[in-house]
Amino acid sequence: MHETRAQASRRDGRTAAGEGAPRLPHARTVELRGHIIDSHILSQVMDLVMDRNAEFYIEQFDVGRNKFDPSYCRIAIHAATPDALDEMLEAVNRLGAQGLEAEETDARSAPAPADGVLPEGFHCTTNMPTEVRIGGDWVVVEAIEMDLAIALRLGSDLKPVGAYVVPMADVRAGTPIVIGHEGVRVLPIERPRSPALLGSAARASQGGFSFMSSAVSSERPKAAAIAELAEQMRRVREVGGRTLVVGGPAIIHTGAGPLLAALIRNGYVKLLFAGNALAAHDIESALYNTSLGVSLSADSEGAALEHGHEHHLRSINAIRAAGSIANAVGSGLLTSGIMYECVKNDVPFVLAGSIRDDGPLPDVITDTMAAQRAMRAHVQSPQGVGLALLMGTTLHAIAVGNLLPAATLTVCVDINPAVVTKLLDRGSLQTAGLVIDAGGFLRELTQQLGV
Amino acid sequence: MHETRAQASRRDGRTAAGEGAPRLPHARTVELRGHIIDSHILSQVMDLVMDRNAEFYIEQFDVGRNKFDPSYCRIAIHAATPDALDEMLEAVNRLGAQGLEAEETDARSAPAPADGVLPEGFHCTTNMPTEVRIGGDWVVVEAIEMDLAIALRLGSDLKPVGAYVVPMADVRAGTPIVIGHEGVRVLPIERPRSPALLGSAARASQGGFSFMSSAVSSERPKAAAIAELAEQMRRVREVGGRTLVVGGPAIIHTGAGPLLAALIRNGYVKLLFAGNALAAHDIESALYNTSLGVSLSADSEGAALEHGHEHHLRSINAIRAAGSIANAVGSGLLTSGIMYECVKNDVPFVLAGSIRDDGPLPDVITDTMAAQRAMRAHVQSPQGVGLALLMGTTLHAIAVGNLLPAATLTVCVDINPAVVTKLLDRGSLQTAGLVIDAGGFLRELTQQLGV
Amino acid sequence: MHETRAQASRRDGRTAAGEGAPRLPHARTVELRGHIIDSHILSQVMDLVMDRNAEFYIEQFDVGRNKFDPSYCRIAIHAATPDALDEMLEAVNRLGAQGLEAEETDARSAPAPADGVLPEGFHCTTNMPTEVRIGGDWVVVEAIEMDLAIALRLGSDLKPVGAYVVPMADVRAGTPIVIGHEGVRVLPIERPRSPALLGSAARASQGGFSFMSSAVSSERPKAAAIAELAEQMRRVREVGGRTLVVGGPAIIHTGAGPLLAALIRNGYVKLLFAGNALAAHDIESALYNTSLGVSLSADSEGAALEHGHEHHLRSINAIRAAGSIANAVGSGLLTSGIMYECVKNDVPFVLAGSIRDDGPLPDVITDTMAAQRAMRAHVQSPQGVGLALLMGTTLHAIAVGNLLPAATLTVCVDINPAVVTKLLDRGSLQTAGLVIDAGGFLRELTQQLGV
Amino acid sequence: MHETRAQASRRDGRTAAGEGAPRLPHARTVELRGHIIDSHILSQVMDLVMDRNAEFYIEQFDVGRNKFDPSYCRIAIHAATPDALDEMLEAVNRLGAQGLEAEETDARSAPAPADGVLPEGFHCTTNMPTEVRIGGDWVVVEAIEMDLAIALRLGSDLKPVGAYVVPMADVRAGTPIVIGHEGVRVLPIERPRSPALLGSAARASQGGFSFMSSAVSSERPKAAAIAELAEQMRRVREVGGRTLVVGGPAIIHTGAGPLLAALIRNGYVKLLFAGNALAAHDIESALYNTSLGVSLSADSEGAALEHGHEHHLRSINAIRAAGSIANAVGSGLLTSGIMYECVKNDVPFVLAGSIRDDGPLPDVITDTMAAQRAMRAHVQSPQGVGLALLMGTTLHAIAVGNLLPAATLTVCVDINPAVVTKLLDRGSLQTAGLVIDAGGFLRELTQQLGV
Repeated sequence: MHETRAQASRRDGRTAAGEGAPRLPHARTVELRGHIIDSHILSQVMDLVMDRNAEFYIEQFDVGRNKFDPSYCRIAIHAATPDALDEMLEAVNRLGAQGLEAEETDARSAPAPADGVLPEGFHCTTNMPTEVRIGGDWVVVEAIEMDLAIALRLGSDLKPVGAYVVPMADVRAGTPIVIGHEGVRVLPIERPRSPALLGSAARASQGGFSFMSSAVSSERPKAAAIAELAEQMRRVREVGGRTLVVGGPAIIHTGAGPLLAALIRNGYVKLLFAGNALAAHDIESALYNTSLGVSLSADSEGAALEHGHEHHLRSINAIRAAGSIANAVGSGLLTSGIMYECVKNDVPFVLAGSIRDDGPLPDVITDTMAAQRAMRAHVQSPQGVGLALLMGTTLHAIAVGNLLPAATLTVCVDINPAVVTKLLDRGSLQTAGLVIDAGGFLRELTQQLGV
Repeated sequence: MHETRAQASRRDGRTAAGEGAPRLPHARTVELRGHIIDSHILSQVMDLVMDRNAEFYIEQFDVGRNKFDPSYCRIAIHAATPDALDEMLEAVNRLGAQGLEAEETDARSAPAPADGVLPEGFHCTTNMPTEVRIGGDWVVVEAIEMDLAIALRLGSDLKPVGAYVVPMADVRAGTPIVIGHEGVRVLPIERPRSPALLGSAARASQGGFSFMSSAVSSERPKAAAIAELAEQMRRVREVGGRTLVVGGPAIIHTGAGPLLAALIRNGYVKLLFAGNALAAHDIESALYNTSLGVSLSADSEGAALEHGHEHHLRSINAIRAAGSIANAVGSGLLTSGIMYECVKNDVPFVLAGSIRDDGPLPDVITDTMAAQRAMRAHVQSPQGVGLALLMGTTLHAIAVGNLLPAATLTVCVDINPAVVTKLLDRGSLQTAGLVIDAGGFLRELTQQLGV
Repeated sequence: MHETRAQASRRDGRTAAGEGAPRLPHARTVELRGHIIDSHILSQVMDLVMDRNAEFYIEQFDVGRNKFDPSYCRIAIHAATPDALDEMLEAVNRLGAQGLEAEETDARSAPAPADGVLPEGFHCTTNMPTEVRIGGDWVVVEAIEMDLAIALRLGSDLKPVGAYVVPMADVRAGTPIVIGHEGVRVLPIERPRSPALLGSAARASQGGFSFMSSAVSSERPKAAAIAELAEQMRRVREVGGRTLVVGGPAIIHTGAGPLLAALIRNGYVKLLFAGNALAAHDIESALYNTSLGVSLSADSEGAALEHGHEHHLRSINAIRAAGSIANAVGSGLLTSGIMYECVKNDVPFVLAGSIRDDGPLPDVITDTMAAQRAMRAHVQSPQGVGLALLMGTTLHAIAVGNLLPAATLTVCVDINPAVVTKLLDRGSLQTAGLVIDAGGFLRELTQQLGV
Repeated sequence: MHETRAQASRRDGRTAAGEGAPRLPHARTVELRGHIIDSHILSQVMDLVMDRNAEFYIEQFDVGRNKFDPSYCRIAIHAATPDALDEMLEAVNRLGAQGLEAEETDARSAPAPADGVLPEGFHCTTNMPTEVRIGGDWVVVEAIEMDLAIALRLGSDLKPVGAYVVPMADVRAGTPIVIGHEGVRVLPIERPRSPALLGSAARASQGGFSFMSSAVSSERPKAAAIAELAEQMRRVREVGGRTLVVGGPAIIHTGAGPLLAALIRNGYVKLLFAGNALAAHDIESALYNTSLGVSLSADSEGAALEHGHEHHLRSINAIRAAGSIANAVGSGLLTSGIMYECVKNDVPFVLAGSIRDDGPLPDVITDTMAAQRAMRAHVQSPQGVGLALLMGTTLHAIAVGNLLPAATLTVCVDINPAVVTKLLDRGSLQTAGLVIDAGGFLRELTQQLGV
């Protein structure tokens, strides 16, 4: 790395106008550290400042010379009013810019005024690694997740000793909650280097020149991206990590249920989040070989069975009679499929309820806040989630996407480009999207994995 | 109307093959009554029989001579095996065909074996008007809704005196539940005659010859259809009926929140079903004039405010602090918007939770089964629902679509044709779809209504 | 089949209002023949009359007793004004209703006033089998196609002896063109009986009760439908018929080019219509193993090659240098792929130009009218088209869909439901749609066909 | 701006590993100039190098201190093989990186081997401002456009004096064509600063953190973006520039034809590119007040007129009889609509043919290469195009998008997010997308413009 120092004299006169003009009056200096060019953090800070008619002046820039080097940048931000400056600082803070270390103060906090209510001005989290300053030290916020508050953990002397995220609904009256953006810093994460899958996702997000570079296009060849994903799944399995699948009923409709079941049986999937629909269709296909009454076999007549929707309800009813999916496996009622493999292979699952559910199955958590908590507990468990694969479900994909830290490798697979775009909008460079139907995807993936 | 009698002799020989061939051995005769040509019931019965390699023989056909006349058709259905025949009868029964009146028996029932569990072979409802035969009389099933069971209401002598639908989750052990399809009949409903809106929907569903007749096309002029809908809304308001709006957050995103608020204020909307998102975005727009942090004004800078998502969470937190939306209106915190107008105009609302909710608002029913019950209670109340308008929400549109009887005039509005197609797939001739964004739709609708 | 006669007396009073009311003054009687219930023709005629506030009175109805029997219906149509009646007659005529045979007159004609200009009031065709009455005889219109004019072929005595369709642009001054709807009749076609594929398409088009019956849903299992299609392709090959493929570049993007090449090599595809894009991408993949510069291999790095779009242009340039695709095959430059197999297996192809073409390839017909004529010549050739498979192209699918008679079995495959809906809107009961990406579709199809 | 110089000594040891490791053997140094951070050029070069397992070492970095300052960066690129290095150089060259000025050589050229055939290794253009080095001087390539070749213009002494782009089909045998990437440089363009419209587009393309920042989302408020666009249109009109509209028939279907006509009448639109469909539907709506036979009035019955498609064909026939659209205006046949206003206000139009055209209108250029040339002539004319507005057409939007230089402000409006994504994939920071139906868009736009 090499030093960069501001030098007023420039070889051409192009900057004279900028230099000569009086600067906006309200200023503060911030710092950025890490892979700030490569991860586009620096460009984003510049965009932000320019979009708001504010100004930036780069005071120091030590640029990483190669891909192993982090960079450092010190920028003075100037705005027209104190409020505009404050707003700007809060915004760039969310991108990872922070005040000068020397000037930084401890995070401020205020007690939650009531159960389920946060104090005014509460700091709202991103999904990036975050630290808060407590007693002069920077402390990592545990189990970071976007759009939550930061609570301080108190030691025996009632002084803060740690920080963790808390959902609004779960906060207890009196818990100290971080307010404002001072003493809070976000750490930019490095862009992963994975040629096909993540390279394409990251490139897609840059609006680069390359024709058809978008990961959300249905027109891209998928083979290389899926091979890369298969490689990641192998790696996660080898190191004892967990691949989470979040799936919708399209997996069953497209006849790919047995493929997902095989992934579970072979240890490639270690955690399953879904709704009532995936589980009910899976069980219907196990009990009747139909999905919503439509035959899944190529050799059947294949016409929708007119009373087929009854299969769906009768399947749910049968599991309700058994008491639970595990009971139905135990009693020999359920002998194949995704849910069967989960039970047999001790793969935990969370089935979250929705208002369009039939039944639902007895395992479904009908309270949506309780379901969020159950999913969060798995994500935040010591084993964590090494790779998240979201397939064929808008509702659950976005719900789980919101729960995951930005650093979690996440792949969103859907036939509808809009769903993939929504997930990519979370902004994590670790999120990739594939526009392909769940059946075709799982066929290619299982072939690559040799299961 | 005129009589039609089978006559073996026909002027040409074309039917000889059909006539001469031996008929399939297992047969039963069914009857169809009503607007069975116009509503395509007769074609569907024929399709069904032919698709299953069974046979039909029309024994009597009294055809309605004009649009005021119902028709009557008696058909013998022949199948290869008793099971195939039984399956066929169940299927045509769901379309409204029923066994010969003279041969009909009372509905059979069995007690629910446990709370939340239906007996085997339970009859699964459609959303069409349905009757069950009790003690030789045909009795209307109350508050019909699709994919539920039919419970029998017992009189003081413990004999059945009525019938009503019951969701699987709500059934109590011992309640007598109708099983099988004998003694149950579905009544075909007449196709509504409303030239632009419903005419187009119904025509779309026929796969007719007319070019571009599909109601789910984004390429159709919408003005005439929306004018027709406005007329229906006026009519419903005049007769004291209720128009239900089921809405998603796109209403706010597209800047149409004030238009829906105006519809409520002017008495055109009398019931609102939504999720946390619509209400939270509406309240955010009232408190901050942003929607997920994006400015809603044309005169603002309009760039997404980077901390804008915080507005969303701060709005929810403010209402949580107030205790409820009504409290926030009462205290003067909330002074405009959709939810404000609901409170001010005594328009009841149900906010149903989902797993992707932030917060949620204190009024949200987080248990999905409880939310279903709350919506069902409104739909089944004496005032009922005269017109249902589903806008910009897949999840809630389908959930509510499932709750409504086929006879309820339902209009689904979405920018995504797939959502509209899903709703139309419910099969009711009273359901129409418009592919247009919520903002453009509400602008046209309010203009037509002069609000 | 049995006779149906109007009988004024009815057993209940429900029709009294209708019967008693005075009929609209302007009336004409029409006839319908064939599978008019099953094919929904009768329902559509009724819809049409009712939607326009006109009236119908069924005078005679001989109903087909089973699936082998045609039906006959005579209907009096009443309207308020002569113009309304005329409009109505023209509309029902397009559905296959025709004036009473006894009253029918010969078709009228007028000479085209100039090259490329049709006379006023020219009869506009549908894609249904059509006959015109010449000298008291009904004569089949040759090579029927929608939205064209009907020209009369003159004998040596300059009297009309036959009829054929002519596109507006191709008409010559003086050619006698049929005007008005008198002496023209459309023959309803029978709904095909093919359980999975066509059954589902036809059922989808009815708006029936069955849940999720829509063929344009991405949520349907496709295996049975594709098996049925494979069966049809086998049958067409066996009888020496031709399967036409109309394809877009997504076939190459999704890595399915070799599968389509195999279908051609194995005699399953006998005719190919496409644009410059499919051929250029196919040739790029043969020369460079990329598609628009994106690697098609799973084992490559897979990242988009930044100069990849150059492969596309260099491939086109190489073929231009060779003079034609056939030359490039002959010289050994092109040794695999779809276009290679076409040349090697004498499968004719038409490549139609579009304004977004790069290059284009020397084989591309850049004049769109000339390209239409080239495609039409193949469709109308004695061998005709037994089955049309439209994959992954909106522009070409709709263009070719317009050229095909309604009786041609047509399957539209696309990842975008909107394209499939547009094709189904043509209204032919012989058109089925599958929402699936081209790669997944061809993988399943070739597997079913064992190639 | 301040100087940045490589300094081997770094204050921490983090870079030791990177520094110590032996560098890949094959290296070349390139330079980047301009707004290379802000426009993401630098990040993209880094991505590219890292994605290919090559290495970069920043040798000098002079960073722009504020938004008026350009930056300068000199980077050594190291690769494993000469071929890998060459490939890398070609790729970064397309992004604007170029060899060291001192080492740069003149562009090489080779004669086109035949009419319509380019020499091997021809340089393939981007849509960015481009210069070629001729006789030691950098010369601007005229009328830059993507995916074409660069031809050299020869002076009287047969030495090159200039450079211009040439489409493959239009090249003449013997014309000197630039080959390879030496002596060719691409100049990065500055990101425009326009808060709502372009800010959002640019931000969307960065994959930033801000929730829902994507310009291709249907969930964004559009009012601010459309206000910004209106402002741009006003500015373009004031300075005598030209706004080009490229439109599809959805403009007419959604009832917005009169709004576009008003924009033309008021001088906001100075050039129109479309297909046969827009013009034919516009003329149909002027002659019959229907669009494909569907009534455009709110007060009509609105049901599709069954013979409505005939209106479409009769309209085209009427214009064919008149000889041209201008003749039809001159004769008083055509008295309103978009095409009428074009004729009346001397707004030139290009109607490009497609294979799905009915008719077509006599003004349609049926040869697609001729149509491309006609559009190109307008784009490259001295007046040029100040703003391009692409609405409701995939085919024409992409065709025209390919013709425009990257520096042309381009807005793509479509109800289908996939179309917008495709356009944005061109990669120009000057392209913005709005997902909204054409009707709603034009209503808001004309309101903002007060026409």
